[in-house]
Order: sequence, then structure tokens, then C-alpha cells
Amino acid sequence: MKALEQKILNEGKIYPGNILKVNTFLNHQLDCDFMLEMGKEIAEIYKNDNVTKILTVEASGIAIAVAAGMVMHLPVVFAKKSKSLNLGDNVYSAVAHSYTHGNDYTMVVEKQFLSENDRVIIVDDFLATGNALVGLIKIIESAGASLAGISCAIEKKFQGGGDKLREQGIKVESLALISEMTEDSLKFCR
Amino acid sequence: MKALEQKILNEGKIYPGNILKVNTFLNHQLDCDFMLEMGKEIAEIYKNDNVTKILTVEASGIAIAVAAGMVMHLPVVFAKKSKSLNLGDNVYSAVAHSYTHGNDYTMVVEKQFLSENDRVIIVDDFLATGNALVGLIKIIESAGASLAGISCAIEKKFQGGGDKLREQGIKVESLALISEMTEDSLKFCR
Repeated sequence: MKALEQKILNEGKIYPGNILKVNTFLNHQLDCDFMLEMGKEIAEIYKNDNVTKILTVEASGIAIAVAAGMVMHLPVVFAKKSKSLNLGDNVYSAVAHSYTHGNDYTMVVEKQFLSENDRVIIVDDFLATGNALVGLIKIIESAGASLAGISCAIEKKFQGGGDKLREQGIKVESLALISEMTEDSLKFCR
Repeated sequence: MKALEQKILNEGKIYPGNILKVNTFLNHQLDCDFMLEMGKEIAEIYKNDNVTKILTVEASGIAIAVAAGMVMHLPVVFAKKSKSLNLGDNVYSAVAHSYTHGNDYTMVVEKQFLSENDRVIIVDDFLATGNALVGLIKIIESAGASLAGISCAIEKKFQGGGDKLREQGIKVESLALISEMTEDSLKFCR
């Protein structure tokens, strides 16, 4: 998505440790008109996939997932991050590791929101190591639902998470794919 | 908003301690088409208020704020909940208390996203004691921005938070106002 690449070049800031901040439109401040454009792009990718539901994880995945949901007229379910180990038996859960915060967290989804009749796409803001996505896939599998594919706004392809999922035969279509990143430059896949 | 009242009656579940769960469309699963309808309602309320920005707090305020932002063609800024006490000086912050989780948390907004030129509306999913909103107002004041008003999807009016804000002269327009709630029934303000 050319417009997204341009926005990353214009507004993104690179920090040590492969951190790309796009706080001005995707992670803290949200450019709502642009969210809708990204939602249209995701809707186009999955228009023939009989999707019934969109899954994301709080907090910064919610905006782009809702944009896609509006265009596709589908509900979004966001996994909640839980500190509690005592989850009860009405939820599906998976543990993921946050590289940003350096800790493990549990993602939970109430069982009533995913069933074997669901065909799900996962939408999120970033794909780096793919760790959170693996957790969301586990939740989809626990529910007996099927995964139609994954779309994240920005994939840091050099971190390998997206390709690992593709190797498993999963459809992974990111809106902008970064092939290389140094402290003062950034290249997209061509 | 009649359609929202009906949805609360149809799908809401009441739990002890004045807890109303609307997980099926507002808090965990998100009804995106309905989000857009709520966004239009909020846009209508503030159409003459020269709003420049929408402020909310992660996580469940994001969807409805983004819906309003899409209709109004405005950016949304969501305050982040921080555990860190070491915030640096590039953020505005305020402490709020969570009755749901029984703890205090700090909300932060990067200074670059709010300025004295901004006229802000606060959008959130619930208004009960108004505690989180007071924190967001403090952040708006710290930035020298002005507050055009507050719209939450569901106000539990009997908990008094909304009226306390109205007494300060703040425009508070909730989409559904609950006047009373018991374990098996719920009434709206007329």
C-alpha cells in the first residue's frame, strides 16, 4: 500500500533495537480517515474468503481491525490481555511474550465469541516476530474456528515472523513490508 | 439513542456491584456497523463545536472514538495506561482509579498530540463515576487545550459521575442514560 509506505517514510521514527514508532497515525494518535483506507485494503484482500469475524488484540490493533470490520460489515473480537492466572473455563487463552515490555502476558477471548462456524482473519498493527499472532492462532484453533489469513499494517519482514507463518501455509498479507531498517533509513520490499 | 437502548436491553447482562456487561457489541466483541451508527450520533452532537481532536483511553474506548473520528474526519488520540512511574517529560499524565480492577493507574498522552490550539471531545464506552474522565480533562487542561464536551456510549447516571461534570458546566451527552439498575432490570432516563 503505497500511501502507507509514504506515511511511514514521512512520519515514522526509528529507535535503537529495531523499533519503528508510528505514533502520529497508528499507535497513539490515530488518523481515522487513513484507518478507513487501510480497512478498505484489507477488505479487498479477503473479499472472496467468506470471512465471518475479525480477531485482534488490545490495544493498538483495535482501530485498524474496526476499520476493516466497518468496510466488511463484520464484528471484531479483541483478545484481552490478562494478568490473572485464574481465568475460569469460559475463555480461550494463550500466552505471548512482549518484546517491547520484556514480559509474558496471557491473551483471553470469551468462548461465546468464536465457534467452529467462524472463518477468521487476524488484523493487527505490527508484525515483527509474530509472537502475538501465534497466540491468536492458538485461540482460533482452540475454538475449532478456521483461519482465513492475517493482515497487519506494517510487517518488519527482516524479523522473520511473517515468513515463518507463510511457511506454514498461512495467507499473510501485510499492507507495508519493510525489508531493512537501520537507524537512519528504511527500505520496503519490492 | 433508541437503537442503543434496545441493544442494551437485548444483549446486556447485569452482574452484582452495578456491573453491566455489553461484551457482545461494545467491550470485547465490537459490532462495527453499530459503532458507525454511534459515531454518526456523536458527530451530530458536536457538529457546531469546531472540534479538532477526539481523546479517549485504551482499550475499549478506542473503537467508538475511531467511529466518531471517521465520521468527523478527525484524529483520535488514546491515552495509554502506564505502570511506569518514570514517564519522562514529553508526556501529560493523570492518575485514575479503576473500580473494576481495584487499582490506580496512570494515563499518559505524548505532548506532541495536544496543544492549546486543540478543541477536544472526550469519547468513551462507559460513564459511571467519571473517574477516568476527570483524568482525561486534567490532561486536556495541562496541554492548554479546550474541552468541547464528553460523549460516552452508556452512562450509568445513578452513579453520579456525569452529573458531577455537568455541574461544572461541561457538556456531557451520553448516547444511552441508565437511571436505575437492579439485578434483573434496567431503566433509561426519559
